[in-house]
Amino acid sequence: MIPPDHPRYRSLVVRERLAGSARKGIVSWEGLTAHGRGEAFDYLLGERTTASALFAERTAAALLLSARHPVISINGNTAALAAGEIAALQKACGALVEVNLFHRTERRVKMIEDLLTVAGVDVFSGKAERLLLLSHDRAWCRRDGMYSADVVLVPLEDGDRCEVLAGMGKTVIAIDLNPLSRTARTATLTIVDELTRALPQITSACRDLSQAGEERSPVPVDNHYLLSEAIREMTARLSHALD
Amino acid sequence: MIPPDHPRYRSLVVRERLAGSARKGIVSWEGLTAHGRGEAFDYLLGERTTASALFAERTAAALLLSARHPVISINGNTAALAAGEIAALQKACGALVEVNLFHRTERRVKMIEDLLTVAGVDVFSGKAERLLLLSHDRAWCRRDGMYSADVVLVPLEDGDRCEVLAGMGKTVIAIDLNPLSRTARTATLTIVDELTRALPQITSACRDLSQAGEERSPVPVDNHYLLSEAIREMTARLSHALD
Repeated sequence: MIPPDHPRYRSLVVRERLAGSARKGIVSWEGLTAHGRGEAFDYLLGERTTASALFAERTAAALLLSARHPVISINGNTAALAAGEIAALQKACGALVEVNLFHRTERRVKMIEDLLTVAGVDVFSGKAERLLLLSHDRAWCRRDGMYSADVVLVPLEDGDRCEVLAGMGKTVIAIDLNPLSRTARTATLTIVDELTRALPQITSACRDLSQAGEERSPVPVDNHYLLSEAIREMTARLSHALD
Repeated sequence: MIPPDHPRYRSLVVRERLAGSARKGIVSWEGLTAHGRGEAFDYLLGERTTASALFAERTAAALLLSARHPVISINGNTAALAAGEIAALQKACGALVEVNLFHRTERRVKMIEDLLTVAGVDVFSGKAERLLLLSHDRAWCRRDGMYSADVVLVPLEDGDRCEVLAGMGKTVIAIDLNPLSRTARTATLTIVDELTRALPQITSACRDLSQAGEERSPVPVDNHYLLSEAIREMTARLSHALD
């Protein structure tokens, strides 16, 4: 039990929820340390959606809506933290949602698919194959899902796989709190924001754009600028931290 | 199995070791996310001992050697990562070593004490009491151990407890990769370095100082300066990260 007088009560509660997901095998233990790394960067961001992140989220919405075959690829951490938010985003942009894990077992895939389904996601299930040019479990995905997608949203993605997906010519939208990670630098568009803040923003922008009914023009992306802005925000907070 | 071609093979192996410790209950799941947070800050430090951290490590050695009753307080993460390094430091400075946990059960305390003993630590075991002005498990420690120490080394410490120990007039030496944490700001001396790099440096400095046989004069500490230096290092790396 977390004592309510602990100053960081809210984030400690989130962590206990993650711990519960770890206990069930939904989040791997390495997923827990990955979450911790994100927490540190979020702390440096000021635990808020920055202006540049909001711009990136709206750009992501435009990319998803103008895609021929958009796919959202879910891992354990994303499912544990944001199953409901993924369901809302799917409804707003029509993307396929498929489960792909770094540490893959049929049991874990099924558990995570069930968790998503309960939260309202229409999960693109079924036969996965070793299709990506990667070692080990990371090569697996579904031929008619992520493999043939033109736009993929990959929250909390492994750097190797992000690089491979981008190398295949896909438009890769990453959500990653670390602007220096390989994922951040190799994605087409990186949203430097916390997952449960980012997803509702993308969903909201999808709804706005759908309503506006604008014609789909090519979406310009300057990811280097967006990453620089995120770094600038973090540097500013660090520099003034002891003031 | 981590594929050896993964660019961050070494740190992934460390993480799997932590995962093994988590499986045994030595490291709590919240301990795994705490480790991840440290990894992020270490990444910003450049994963090396900075000049200011080395200075802090040598200062820590002087403080431990000149203490009347030095105590090292060990938690699950510290034991999992650095049991051997703790044993070496104990031999070099003569401190008591006691186990204190945020999530305390008798079984976990015993498991961690055994792990330390196997690694060569002389563990100060025995009856703990609720002695510190803190809620829940964090209040527990040993009357003739940490409670009556004049100098305590607290690697990877909770901010609340660090603040309380410092408030009791103890000289608190923290090892924390986050220079902005409450622990970092409330400790008497903060070593902003990774645990398994820091401990051998302190040990080495203890041996050097012991050999030199210098008279024990009061040890000056400017922790604000040390934290500013750590922040300066991180800011510099961040600013040039996309160059």
